[in-house]
Amino acid sequence: MKEEKMENGSKKWGFGANEEVNTALDITIRGILTMVMDNLDAGDKRQIIPLGHGDPSAFPCFRTTHIAEDAMVDAVRSAKFNSYAPASGILSTRRSIAEYLSRDLPYKLSSDDVHLTIGCTQAIEVALTVLARPGANILLPRPGYPFYEARAAFSNLQVRHFDLLPEKGWEVDLDAVQALADENTVAMVIINPGNPCGNVFTYQHLEKVAETAKKLGILIISDEVYDHLAFGSNQFVPMGVFGSIVPVLTLGSISKRWIVPGWRFGWLVTNDPNGILKKTKIVDCIKGCLNICSNPSTLIQGAVPQILKKTKGDFFMKIINILRQASDICYDRIKEIPCITCPHKPEGSMFVMAKLNLSLLEDINDDLDFCFKLAKEESVIILPGVAVGMKNWLRITFAIEPSSLEDGLGRIKSFYQRHAKQQ
Amino acid sequence: MKEEKMENGSKKWGFGANEEVNTALDITIRGILTMVMDNLDAGDKRQIIPLGHGDPSAFPCFRTTHIAEDAMVDAVRSAKFNSYAPASGILSTRRSIAEYLSRDLPYKLSSDDVHLTIGCTQAIEVALTVLARPGANILLPRPGYPFYEARAAFSNLQVRHFDLLPEKGWEVDLDAVQALADENTVAMVIINPGNPCGNVFTYQHLEKVAETAKKLGILIISDEVYDHLAFGSNQFVPMGVFGSIVPVLTLGSISKRWIVPGWRFGWLVTNDPNGILKKTKIVDCIKGCLNICSNPSTLIQGAVPQILKKTKGDFFMKIINILRQASDICYDRIKEIPCITCPHKPEGSMFVMAKLNLSLLEDINDDLDFCFKLAKEESVIILPGVAVGMKNWLRITFAIEPSSLEDGLGRIKSFYQRHAKQQ
Repeated sequence: MKEEKMENGSKKWGFGANEEVNTALDITIRGILTMVMDNLDAGDKRQIIPLGHGDPSAFPCFRTTHIAEDAMVDAVRSAKFNSYAPASGILSTRRSIAEYLSRDLPYKLSSDDVHLTIGCTQAIEVALTVLARPGANILLPRPGYPFYEARAAFSNLQVRHFDLLPEKGWEVDLDAVQALADENTVAMVIINPGNPCGNVFTYQHLEKVAETAKKLGILIISDEVYDHLAFGSNQFVPMGVFGSIVPVLTLGSISKRWIVPGWRFGWLVTNDPNGILKKTKIVDCIKGCLNICSNPSTLIQGAVPQILKKTKGDFFMKIINILRQASDICYDRIKEIPCITCPHKPEGSMFVMAKLNLSLLEDINDDLDFCFKLAKEESVIILPGVAVGMKNWLRITFAIEPSSLEDGLGRIKSFYQRHAKQQ
Repeated sequence: MKEEKMENGSKKWGFGANEEVNTALDITIRGILTMVMDNLDAGDKRQIIPLGHGDPSAFPCFRTTHIAEDAMVDAVRSAKFNSYAPASGILSTRRSIAEYLSRDLPYKLSSDDVHLTIGCTQAIEVALTVLARPGANILLPRPGYPFYEARAAFSNLQVRHFDLLPEKGWEVDLDAVQALADENTVAMVIINPGNPCGNVFTYQHLEKVAETAKKLGILIISDEVYDHLAFGSNQFVPMGVFGSIVPVLTLGSISKRWIVPGWRFGWLVTNDPNGILKKTKIVDCIKGCLNICSNPSTLIQGAVPQILKKTKGDFFMKIINILRQASDICYDRIKEIPCITCPHKPEGSMFVMAKLNLSLLEDINDDLDFCFKLAKEESVIILPGVAVGMKNWLRITFAIEPSSLEDGLGRIKSFYQRHAKQQ
């Protein structure tokens, strides 16, 4: 063995890459969007229309409120937030988030329930790390957000998928959840408002989800990164409302509601009025995990109490109104494109799922091929459904400037017309 | 099994905490300092003197340069840095760091060599994650920085310790390195300028370290978070200078040189002119790892090029001068306290290691007991050496306002006098 490594009087290099990381890489949205964008034609001088990811911050109409910018500037100028913060975050910031979230709950959260994270991304990372035990499995929605699959693979947490049902407004297939769960199941994940489906779960459905999880003895990870971005008939209800039925880990962020995903601030909150997560040492383990991870910038932690306290309803209304208008445009224009159909009108988040009818297309093999050729010919970026677990579907974001959205959907229509099968 | 979990018609909770996280928790500096601070006497109305950690940012004389604050404010006001950033960071920021670090190297780094991280903390996390393979081991310095041990434990990377030699100015015991390494050794870590020892390695010693690593076929992780904080006779030399002898992963940050650890910005840089880390897929794996992790705030990424470009030498000189003055005070005052001795005058970073002579003390059992009682009786916080791998030593930071440092060391002297063994 040692001999084998000898070369020029020194050993060959004895290190190598961790294979688990490279496996996880393949299935992130960022990775697949990069593949799609590699097809862009530099010769096309039109604006690139980004319908692939949930980040409209570059569009002027989605610029964050000056309240948020002022709070950040004040935090910088104060010089009070240059130091390391405690592992779970600055106490006053945790308290402000407890108050913010408690407004929508039948009980009060305390600062002890709140752990600050680097965006919702780190909240997912911590939640899955904490629950990973040898042999454990977790139930994830299909379609879903593939970062969960990537982190589960990284933590050796087995994944089992339950379907969201398009014919039922993308509700959870609770029969499937019951059939999938066994004694090694630790949790189920829901994303509400929905990514990628743009649905908003009703109070009644969330209650059934809670009862099912209780029956199975598993906790619920409720990804509410799009919280309050609801503009249809269903009001946003936080899963924490049912925390007395079943323990809930709520994941959230200022990224989407304030349109500042680059600021990297989120939270992992235990909605657990019965103290089950304390008893099962999950809370200690969350703290432990944050103690051996990086933490969100202290500057942003310092700004958040002001951001939460001072942001006015008119900013939120403005954003909701643009999203509603954009989702209407998206839904209506998709109806004019025969090869894609949208089973459920979006009513929240920034996305809609649309089904691709390949039989109407002449020379398109699948969703990936559709997205690659669309990028090349029309400079429009869409996420192939396979990235979120639904082959031959598309995830389209409508959260861009409405005029650009019109432009993009018009180009998809032209693309269809050029590739339509001749009758 | 299933029966065992039934309770009140529903299963008992089927989840539990990840034990590996809780094991890792015990050995962080943050965890041990919290234990020490739990001993503080609320009745003592004097200022608490924090000689426990390397973060002087709360002291007015260590306030960061207005250049850094202005750059952050400009980034916020521009609204150009609210979006998600690429996984390895914004290109122009990576380029600016490549240029900044290349000034001290015999070759030019490119932006491809630079990966932006959430402080040096995440750089450590990524480096150890990337190298973790079944059966692999890593060589760490003793005394060292226990975050390495925590992350290695988390990634199932076996740790082997080589000593730093106090009688040789805390140089690496290279014979021990050679004796410890085997075919499963992937890397060795050095921290330069030294934490916790306050030493600065010479060019000649670093060259020997490089030659040894080459012979063993292992890469070097060079933790340079305290880069340029050298105020003795040895100039700071980056390990990357020897990148053509052996591949080097350089970890760095703006945290210490600019005194803004809370901003959470750092880097992981491949110093690898021979392209070995590309060939062995380490570079791909770094990218993969950053793709499934949180990334540093885009705001801070946006500010960094200005911070690197515009910060004047007078700011760095001011900080170096305070550190030199403080280290002199620390070294001289320690000489007046018989029970602690300092084998090597600090010449860099923010720390010094001092040996505790328990035989001169009446009622102190060990370094932990010393630190607990000192916190309680004198409101002075010191890190017990056991936290950094050296039982019955102390790690003392001198990076605080000099008058507070004088006060703190005076209190340690009083503490000694009260607890001294009667002759």
